[in-house]
Order: sequence, then structure tokens, then C-alpha cells
Amino acid sequence: MKVLLDTKSGDAPPEEIINGAIGALQSESGRDLQVTLVGDEKFNRQHVESQESNQRNISYINAPHRISMEDTPTKAVRENPDSSLVKGIKAIKDKSQIFISSGNTGAVVAGALFNLGRIPGVIRPGLAGVIPTVKSGKVILIDIGATTDADARNLAQFGIMGNSFARKVLGKEEPKVGILNIGAEQSKGNRLTKKTIDLLHKTDLKYVGNVEPHLLLTNPPADVVICEGFTGNILIKAFEGGSEGTIGFFKKAISSSLRAKIGGFILRPVLEKLKHELSYAQFGAVPLLGVRGVVFVAHGRSESRAIKNAILYASQASRWDLPGEIEAEIKRVDFGE
Amino acid sequence: MKVLLDTKSGDAPPEEIINGAIGALQSESGRDLQVTLVGDEKFNRQHVESQESNQRNISYINAPHRISMEDTPTKAVRENPDSSLVKGIKAIKDKSQIFISSGNTGAVVAGALFNLGRIPGVIRPGLAGVIPTVKSGKVILIDIGATTDADARNLAQFGIMGNSFARKVLGKEEPKVGILNIGAEQSKGNRLTKKTIDLLHKTDLKYVGNVEPHLLLTNPPADVVICEGFTGNILIKAFEGGSEGTIGFFKKAISSSLRAKIGGFILRPVLEKLKHELSYAQFGAVPLLGVRGVVFVAHGRSESRAIKNAILYASQASRWDLPGEIEAEIKRVDFGE
Repeated sequence: MKVLLDTKSGDAPPEEIINGAIGALQSESGRDLQVTLVGDEKFNRQHVESQESNQRNISYINAPHRISMEDTPTKAVRENPDSSLVKGIKAIKDKSQIFISSGNTGAVVAGALFNLGRIPGVIRPGLAGVIPTVKSGKVILIDIGATTDADARNLAQFGIMGNSFARKVLGKEEPKVGILNIGAEQSKGNRLTKKTIDLLHKTDLKYVGNVEPHLLLTNPPADVVICEGFTGNILIKAFEGGSEGTIGFFKKAISSSLRAKIGGFILRPVLEKLKHELSYAQFGAVPLLGVRGVVFVAHGRSESRAIKNAILYASQASRWDLPGEIEAEIKRVDFGE
Repeated sequence: MKVLLDTKSGDAPPEEIINGAIGALQSESGRDLQVTLVGDEKFNRQHVESQESNQRNISYINAPHRISMEDTPTKAVRENPDSSLVKGIKAIKDKSQIFISSGNTGAVVAGALFNLGRIPGVIRPGLAGVIPTVKSGKVILIDIGATTDADARNLAQFGIMGNSFARKVLGKEEPKVGILNIGAEQSKGNRLTKKTIDLLHKTDLKYVGNVEPHLLLTNPPADVVICEGFTGNILIKAFEGGSEGTIGFFKKAISSSLRAKIGGFILRPVLEKLKHELSYAQFGAVPLLGVRGVVFVAHGRSESRAIKNAILYASQASRWDLPGEIEAEIKRVDFGE
């Protein structure tokens, strides 16, 4: 089981990302893991040698160029074959190998499309976020930003791909599939949701109807929630903002009186832990479904703990053969033109 | 100054809504207010008589029919001229009169379009939410659900209307206007945001670029943030869910240890207050901009406190002449076909 790790494209410096890899290799569940660091080989090798005595499971690919968050994805991928992002994706040889990048999401998507290609039958890929809920375990939201301007056929396929992923990651035989919408009532929605719902009825997915966003974090009525990529990305960032905002307001509130200050002091460790848990770091990394290979995108801000979690989480995926599953499922439904 | 209040269309029972009106009339800032209760007159009159000795400032319009949350907006409005929602909108006589409903948002929009019409030059109306932020006062988000499937011209007009509203409600001479987007970089976005940005450059708005959703609640770089109605509605509901989710996770966390339980016990009143503050009730009501009259939509779940706040907040708007302002501003820019 091998993880190809992009050390150059994220917001965090390479040493932070490498420390995440070392943390994963040293952990209980990371024993069988191999990590290939894709980036500035000389720097990466030096940093590993300064940190870690056991270097058996670490190898290197030299890719000195960095694609930045500001670069235009398609252009950047075409013009930078020597980038860590492109070289890492190209290095995926078989289904036991996984690529993880905390770089420019658009560039990872473009790089995967150009170099791995789509699974036969898949029109556009989708990023499948796994979101913790207060009451009902985890829920999968797809797409959270791979395909902006997605159409109804794309969304229906996100449902099929999300369903395959949910079977594996949630271990549910027949996951419930819903669509993100602005109301619970059937009449609610826009042109896209209405068209998508028509297509979903043609599949054998266990379709359960509309899911309102405020239920996603508490008690969503579905295991897989379909949405358009622009909207999904807005939603994920809104949850991040909603949590940060609430904690911000909370911190303001606990300095409002002596009693509040005392309670706040006692609760500080709990609050810090919660802030950590609700931060992007818990998501670890999200798979890009629909391409011929296993590619995970981690949050741009990922530091060592988030990278460690991302590696341990993504490495499970090598056992799942998601591309194979998706190919079999996507073939079964033809949505026409 | 007169508020026409729909007592029949919300999720809360009429007596709850009437109690909100009585609360507003009894408050310091509600002294000059007149409230007309639009709903089942007999019931409303009886409830007022049982609650309130001073009934000088309360009048009645009998509109026994209810448009429900499940009704299809356009159809419901056409078929139910006797509904509280339609009769209330029709009763608006001049700019000192305001209609408030906590009913079906789509039906309020359809009712206002049919019975008041659009301000000359306005293509589609927008709902302007006022959102509290942790660090930088309030921010206006438009549209939060009046126009799903909005196009770039609609969005650019939301910018102009939001700008007029921000001048009044935030008291800023030249509000900063941004667009909701999935990244801070200029290259980010979908077809709609890109087209809209081109149009915004043709206006004399103080356009400041992209605003990412996670900054909205903390420290947004703009005073007015433009978005498409479907996306805006998802975003508002996600913030609601993000706050509720965070508080839910927090409650779980404070039962995790004895120390946490003690801190949680001490902080309970702070937590309850915060939950209240972050709930929909603080938004009070949001104006529907672009129609020829002053119409506010309150959250469907509004109970008496939320209705009271909605009335006091909306009643300020009678001094602003928003329709007049918007008509003058919208005329100045022609976005073509």
C-alpha cells in the first residue's frame, strides 16, 4: 500500500507535510504503509534524515516545481509537467497506490483528468466530503468543488458515485441518497434540482428526497447528499465559517461576566478540543471520484496533524477499489443526452 | 407608520404572532406604531381583547384563508385572493406602510410581484439578509432566496439594490460590495460569477472582489455580498445548521468529563443566550428589494420574540423610502440584454 504525497502544493511548508507523513508511518495503523514524498527531493531527504531514524518506508520523487493556489488550473497543469502535483498523479501505477495533495483543488482535478482520465461512462468527477453529524454518524456530500457548472446528468452520477463510496466508508449496504435543496417540500428547488430528481428516479438508488442544509450537521435524513460543485464548496466553507463564527461569538460571550469567565476558564480545554474537531483537520482528505485512480484532496491549510489523518484515512481506500466499483455501477444507468 | 402583519401564514400559531405585535407596541420604540393584523379577524380580535387593555393602535383585516409552506407559490397566490398573505400585500397603500409575513417565502415573492409589481428597471427582486459578524459589524447578503436561477444581470442588480439598503441600514455612505465565491483569487468561480463580475465593473459600486463564505460570519471584506438566490438560501441555512451543529457538538463535549460538566453547568445561561442570539430570531425579518412597496419576510419558525423584533426592525424602513432609492439607482445602469 503506497501513498504518493505532494509536499509542495499546500499552504503549509514541506517540512510540516513531511512531519505528517512521519506521524502516519509511526502510528499503529500506518505500519504497512509506504510513503513517497513528491517534491524537492534534496530538501525532503534532508528533512526526513533530520527527523526520523527509520527511513525504510519513505521514498522520493523529485518534482521541484510548485503549482500555487492562484494558478489557473488547466493552464498550470499543462505548463508544469515537473510540478509535484502532476508528477505525483502520473506516478500512480495501480489501485494500491494513492495520491494525496493539499494543493489547488482545481489543479488536482485537471491533473487527474489529463493524466488518469475518466472512468468509462463518467461525465464529470466529483469530490466526496465526509461530514460528521451530531446525531446520525457521518454523511457524504458530493460534489464539494470538483465540477462547477455541473448539469443534471453530472449530479445524478454524483449520486451513483457517492453511493459506491458510502457503501465502503459507511459500511451500509443500501445507503439513503438525497439532494441538497432549499426546502423539504417537493415543489422547492431550482431548474437543476428538478431535472436531477427526474433522473434519480431512473436509477435504483434508494432516493429519499430533499435534504435541507441546516440538517446536514445535526440529523440528516440521507447518507449521501448530492449537490452542484459550486454550491457544495460554498456549503462546506459556510460550515467551517459557521463553526468558527459560533466559537468566536462564544468566546465573546464568555468574557461578558465573572460567572461566564469562570465557566469559560474551566471549559477552555473542552473548547479547544471542539474547535480542533470541527476544523478542516477532521475531514482529513476527500476522494475525487470518477477518475481512473485514487486521488485525495486535503484542505489547503493542512498542517502535520491533518496530513497524518489524511494519509491514514486515505490509505484505507486502497482496499476498496473505488474506481472498479464506480465503473460497474455507472454502466448500469444511461441518462441519455 | 403602519405595519400590516400576516397572522396566518407562519409555522407559529396566530396568538404567538399577535403576542409579538403586542410586545412591539408596548416597547419604547413602538410607541408611534400602528399594527393591522391580517388573518382570521374574529380570532385575532378575541385574542387581542384577552391580552391587551390598550387596543388603540391595533386594527384588523379579515383574511381567513391560509397559504401553507407546502403550497406552490404562484398557483397559491393566484387561487387565494382571500389569503392573509395576498390581502396583506394588497392593503399596502403608501410608503409609510409595511407588510410582514413569516409565511411561504416563494408565495410572498409571487404575491408582491403580482400585486405591487416591480420597480421600473428591476428585472428580478432579491431578499437582503442582514448578518451579524464577530469582528466587523453587520454584512448584507443578497439574494437569500427570492430568485432561484438568477442570471448575471439579476445578480448585478442585487448589488445595486443591496448597496441602497446598506446605505440606510448600515449608515455607510459608500458600502463595499463583493461577490460570494469559492476562492479569494480572481480566477475562481463559475460562469455566473464571472459574467456578474464583468457587469459589476460597469457600475459605480465600490466593488471589492470575491468573498469566501467562511469569512462572512467573522470578518468579511465587504459590506454587501451578492449571491444567487438558491446558493444564498443554502448558505443562510448552512450558517443556521453550522451554529446549531457547533452548539450540539459542544453540548456533547460538556458531558464528557466531570470538569467539563462543572464548566458547562456554570456556563449554561451564557450558552442559552448565545443559542438564542445566533438563532433565526436575531435576523428578525429581511426586506424584499425590487418591488413597489415595503415587504419583509420573517423566518417561518418565528415566535413572538422574533415577530416583535421583526416589527421594530422593519418599521424603521418606512423612513428610508427604499423603493424610491432603488428606482433612482437602478435607472443609472443599463446592462443590456
